[in-house]
Amino acid sequence: MSMNSFGHMFRVTTWGESHGPALGATVDGCPPGVPVDEAMLQHWLDKRRPGQNKNTTQRNEPDAVKILSGVFDGKTTGTSIQLMIENTDQRSRDYGEISQTFRPGHADLTYHLKYGNRDYRGGGRSSARETAARVAAGGIAREAIKALVPGLEIKGYMTQMGSLEIDRGAFDWDAIEQNDFWIPQGAQVAQEWEDYLQALRKEHDSVGAIIEVVARGVPAGIGAPIYAKLDTDLAAAMMSINAVKGVEVGEGMAAAALKGSENADEIYLGADGQPEFSSNHAGGILGGISTGQDVVVRFAVKPTSSILTPRKSIRIDGSPTEVITKGRHDPCVGIRAVPVGEAMMACVILDHLLLHRGQVGENQGQIG
Amino acid sequence: MSMNSFGHMFRVTTWGESHGPALGATVDGCPPGVPVDEAMLQHWLDKRRPGQNKNTTQRNEPDAVKILSGVFDGKTTGTSIQLMIENTDQRSRDYGEISQTFRPGHADLTYHLKYGNRDYRGGGRSSARETAARVAAGGIAREAIKALVPGLEIKGYMTQMGSLEIDRGAFDWDAIEQNDFWIPQGAQVAQEWEDYLQALRKEHDSVGAIIEVVARGVPAGIGAPIYAKLDTDLAAAMMSINAVKGVEVGEGMAAAALKGSENADEIYLGADGQPEFSSNHAGGILGGISTGQDVVVRFAVKPTSSILTPRKSIRIDGSPTEVITKGRHDPCVGIRAVPVGEAMMACVILDHLLLHRGQVGENQGQIG
Amino acid sequence: MSMNSFGHMFRVTTWGESHGPALGATVDGCPPGVPVDEAMLQHWLDKRRPGQNKNTTQRNEPDAVKILSGVFDGKTTGTSIQLMIENTDQRSRDYGEISQTFRPGHADLTYHLKYGNRDYRGGGRSSARETAARVAAGGIAREAIKALVPGLEIKGYMTQMGSLEIDRGAFDWDAIEQNDFWIPQGAQVAQEWEDYLQALRKEHDSVGAIIEVVARGVPAGIGAPIYAKLDTDLAAAMMSINAVKGVEVGEGMAAAALKGSENADEIYLGADGQPEFSSNHAGGILGGISTGQDVVVRFAVKPTSSILTPRKSIRIDGSPTEVITKGRHDPCVGIRAVPVGEAMMACVILDHLLLHRGQVGENQGQIG
Amino acid sequence: MSMNSFGHMFRVTTWGESHGPALGATVDGCPPGVPVDEAMLQHWLDKRRPGQNKNTTQRNEPDAVKILSGVFDGKTTGTSIQLMIENTDQRSRDYGEISQTFRPGHADLTYHLKYGNRDYRGGGRSSARETAARVAAGGIAREAIKALVPGLEIKGYMTQMGSLEIDRGAFDWDAIEQNDFWIPQGAQVAQEWEDYLQALRKEHDSVGAIIEVVARGVPAGIGAPIYAKLDTDLAAAMMSINAVKGVEVGEGMAAAALKGSENADEIYLGADGQPEFSSNHAGGILGGISTGQDVVVRFAVKPTSSILTPRKSIRIDGSPTEVITKGRHDPCVGIRAVPVGEAMMACVILDHLLLHRGQVGENQGQIG
Repeated sequence: MSMNSFGHMFRVTTWGESHGPALGATVDGCPPGVPVDEAMLQHWLDKRRPGQNKNTTQRNEPDAVKILSGVFDGKTTGTSIQLMIENTDQRSRDYGEISQTFRPGHADLTYHLKYGNRDYRGGGRSSARETAARVAAGGIAREAIKALVPGLEIKGYMTQMGSLEIDRGAFDWDAIEQNDFWIPQGAQVAQEWEDYLQALRKEHDSVGAIIEVVARGVPAGIGAPIYAKLDTDLAAAMMSINAVKGVEVGEGMAAAALKGSENADEIYLGADGQPEFSSNHAGGILGGISTGQDVVVRFAVKPTSSILTPRKSIRIDGSPTEVITKGRHDPCVGIRAVPVGEAMMACVILDHLLLHRGQVGENQGQIG
Repeated sequence: MSMNSFGHMFRVTTWGESHGPALGATVDGCPPGVPVDEAMLQHWLDKRRPGQNKNTTQRNEPDAVKILSGVFDGKTTGTSIQLMIENTDQRSRDYGEISQTFRPGHADLTYHLKYGNRDYRGGGRSSARETAARVAAGGIAREAIKALVPGLEIKGYMTQMGSLEIDRGAFDWDAIEQNDFWIPQGAQVAQEWEDYLQALRKEHDSVGAIIEVVARGVPAGIGAPIYAKLDTDLAAAMMSINAVKGVEVGEGMAAAALKGSENADEIYLGADGQPEFSSNHAGGILGGISTGQDVVVRFAVKPTSSILTPRKSIRIDGSPTEVITKGRHDPCVGIRAVPVGEAMMACVILDHLLLHRGQVGENQGQIG
Repeated sequence: MSMNSFGHMFRVTTWGESHGPALGATVDGCPPGVPVDEAMLQHWLDKRRPGQNKNTTQRNEPDAVKILSGVFDGKTTGTSIQLMIENTDQRSRDYGEISQTFRPGHADLTYHLKYGNRDYRGGGRSSARETAARVAAGGIAREAIKALVPGLEIKGYMTQMGSLEIDRGAFDWDAIEQNDFWIPQGAQVAQEWEDYLQALRKEHDSVGAIIEVVARGVPAGIGAPIYAKLDTDLAAAMMSINAVKGVEVGEGMAAAALKGSENADEIYLGADGQPEFSSNHAGGILGGISTGQDVVVRFAVKPTSSILTPRKSIRIDGSPTEVITKGRHDPCVGIRAVPVGEAMMACVILDHLLLHRGQVGENQGQIG
Repeated sequence: MSMNSFGHMFRVTTWGESHGPALGATVDGCPPGVPVDEAMLQHWLDKRRPGQNKNTTQRNEPDAVKILSGVFDGKTTGTSIQLMIENTDQRSRDYGEISQTFRPGHADLTYHLKYGNRDYRGGGRSSARETAARVAAGGIAREAIKALVPGLEIKGYMTQMGSLEIDRGAFDWDAIEQNDFWIPQGAQVAQEWEDYLQALRKEHDSVGAIIEVVARGVPAGIGAPIYAKLDTDLAAAMMSINAVKGVEVGEGMAAAALKGSENADEIYLGADGQPEFSSNHAGGILGGISTGQDVVVRFAVKPTSSILTPRKSIRIDGSPTEVITKGRHDPCVGIRAVPVGEAMMACVILDHLLLHRGQVGENQGQIG
């Protein structure tokens, strides 16, 4: 039982605080022989890295990852992999006030009430900086998936930011990497999103978002009933990300409004002798096990509470105060949550690929 | 690593198939000295029990639970508790067809693809009958909670069924137990819900639902970062229930549309020297740790696919077919999901109460 | 984290007390498609069953095992298997005295100090009856091993009982099943062991023993560094058996007296292109991973404390007393520990076969 | 499930190879508020550190530990603690030969057969250097124990080295720290041990050893049946140390030769109202739960196979060869295993103190 770990077979343990010397992840259970180097991981870390454009925090961290163990001659050895990211841009300043005050909507209060001794510098362990470690671990997972199931693709994108939603009729898979918001829309829409966000920033406010992550090419049959269902593990993985308040698979909450006759994904036999479906209300998962369709997960990120608008709170001595969070914060943390969601998807998918291989071996049921 | 278990300290392992001789739960880690008997558990099982009114399936199971171990002289001993529920109403019939056909929206196909050898009688292990074991285990959790934190209350209710939603302006906590739908509304509304559901049933259709579960009186400080957050574990617990497609904490998916200035729960010092809040957008959880407010979780249940309306599918040999699911099925499985959601909440809350006691001992941070 | 479970992939959770209605094991993670029926399991339970000859306790339990879940059409389905053994010969009697007194060398005292509420009837959860559940689970493991690695053989035998030791020069593998002591020796030696034990019984005494368990045909490469080494898991498995006080692999404690030049198992290339060894001081395990040689484990069982010779103790109120344990007890619990040790070996070996398959897939290193 | 982790509540995950850039341990589940700094940990690392006298390897590593997370203002925060030890004395040399040859008695062969890609530099992950991480984690455990149970003392010492055994009649607890062998004997005996070992070294040989670790002041009632017994966890912990071939609790393997009348530890009521015992054959554990007596564990370490005496082996291509292990190796690895055994004892004891607190709260059973 480890509070800082997730995964059954591919097990990731993260450590580190926002303003400590370093943070990282211990990755256990990666198969041997997977080609991995620091540059491969850096690619994904750069995607999450702050300070890259005006839509994210201006904290400037190189987020350079070092592989300290478990890789030899450019390949994983099957032993535990240590990934370390040193913190460099920890602005020195007086933490006196923040150490005595609880920011509304932050974990300041709950960490204090739980532990007494909390690292208040930049949120300490509760900071979203922890997700850098997830992204590094997700990079390992991606390489291992590549070795096991070539062609399996994982991609995340935003579908909503505040009052803006994507137009699914104009969904453009290839546009995702071409804008600061990871939206599957053209440049003009991206500009509208930027204008919206900059206006909010000037109002000293922040906004929430929805991120959708899709895994294509997941083989049918992974996921393990009853309490390690693929959707169960994905729900936990996404909900564990900072600021996430909701998780959906397939139709998600909207399934409540559907009739059974509408919701059924009818089954056909595909040209390749595998089952195909008329629709994907299920989000690629039935009974906790993958169907072979796209696995589709969505999660909502709340607006960051670190805003310049004053909010009422109390000090550690119980006295009332108003809190304005200065410092360098993301007006929409959802943007940088996209690569984190992808990383979690990669870790969960790999985990279940390995678990299935261990428990079942080869898929046993055939069609036809 | 156990695929059929959940919980860190209070660990529940379920077993059994829909039409096997019995099903049940092994409950590990219940503290010693908790008064428990079969009648206490039966109370909650009766709430989930099928065949009680015309809004649920007509399968008639007494769902009588037997305690086979771990309780002595009317109290738990601290050792593993075995709870067994024998199946009695397994209608004998020819399963020939169902064994060869995959029902759209069911786990028939995925279990076949994963395992090859599946128990097709009534859904086997993937049947919602498994949730009876959860409710029994949840009954143990409730008694243990009562011993640890008197006054902690857990209650679930429906907030949506198809196109019907509750009126939060007329929320009636005490009405919940007084209608077949567990809605916090008066008798007239309940009648409307019944009319709606019976109409659907006559159309040979089914419908989805949303259930909300609230835990009141949860002490501040339970929940364990980063991967055993209270909300993470609740998300997994609810998503593991059959047919659940989405889970929300507090604002849930709606948080995406909010601004930071709207979403902040401002903090006051209460009369008892404990923090109080101007609102509960957070759903009682910050940074994965309870705030002392109500813990609020919602989950969406899809409409059951077991309907009399024909749906296209394939047989195990790949040939096309149309499936009509006869038999005794719930037109809205969300109704019977209410006590299941409560049971999962009880298990998770107890689990974290014990975990906190082990890891931290007494709350260490004080206010004032 | 489950206190009543063991295993990584093949996970066994036991439950039940000596004098409760039943006891059993939930077996999680057994691969699908393994042929299993109750008779197969009963074969091993009968080997452990009490009351079969005058060298074991006279409690007469049929130890009939029922499979309640996880097996369909004579094969495992991949879901959790519930094995139940009902207790039948629970002699009714007055437990007044035993409930108030602590037997020296028993868990009476420690269960009381830990839990307060203990099931004192026949030792409750601490009774060696719990091992019946292990033997049933081990029967499942044996069938799964048979399917995965045909020819892998697991056999246990006694090597010492009190002052008697086997003569390794006259080791007879085939004689093991032909005497009441499971010793690899001829009938004459078995008669000497019986005479020795009956003499002890008449002296109202009991005696300890050493059991050796060998697994032949274990493929090279199973076992997982650093904390799930094959020998680590075997040590835990054997030490968890009631009354065990020591565990050895290969040379065991005697390795302390050896020089490096004596202890080295020199390596050759065998006729089949696989490594062979000049000796097996290592007991078939290097660095926690199997070498392909026989895996050899030994464990020592202390003499049962349940003897008719009076021993000084205290009552629950602190007053001094003398304890004579009447009832039906084994003069040498080591005899019935043989099938238990075999069962634990089977569970651990299967567990690591599955784990290796999941983590590594096929053995990757070749010789030549 | 983590292959590189151990512990239930206090969970340690180690990482790193002998000749990689660094190694370390992630410590999860340490209670908050425990005073910890690097100097406290260094004290124990120095005890294990190589190159300190002529009886151990001449590899000279400072083994300087850095705390990268989880400690703030000199106290633990309750979040994951990262401990890193950088490798500095990795002699550069040609590994060509060692990469192609399997040393008898090493994990070279089994890692190759299991993983294919192995880090052959200095044993890689299988090197005893991994135990430095355990000692660092054990240092954390010691401080946490000090906060929870003042006066609890853990000490290890050698009892046998090859043909030499300590004289228990002249047992001197205070002498342990005063000689290079950690033996509880006077200076003259230590000189004899040194002469013996130096003679062996000149013969190009090595030798095995037995280490005993004692925990004094362990409260009664810790340890959790059935598969997390205190002795089960200690057996696993000790057997997981490199080169260990046997583990004993209390009488250990010698229990096999005893009669029940000899083995019983009779119970008295002590002056403080707690149970006392006439002897400690049990090694402080009954039914897997501590009795309040000294917890006594022993383990045997085999002689290192890294000797200058040639031994027959094969190369990776199957061709025969003779291996002489040059380099800097311990003639008796048992010496440096003493602080490792102590560290494992500390981790297991702390783990069970926390587990008991979580599961049971306060001891519930009283005497008198």
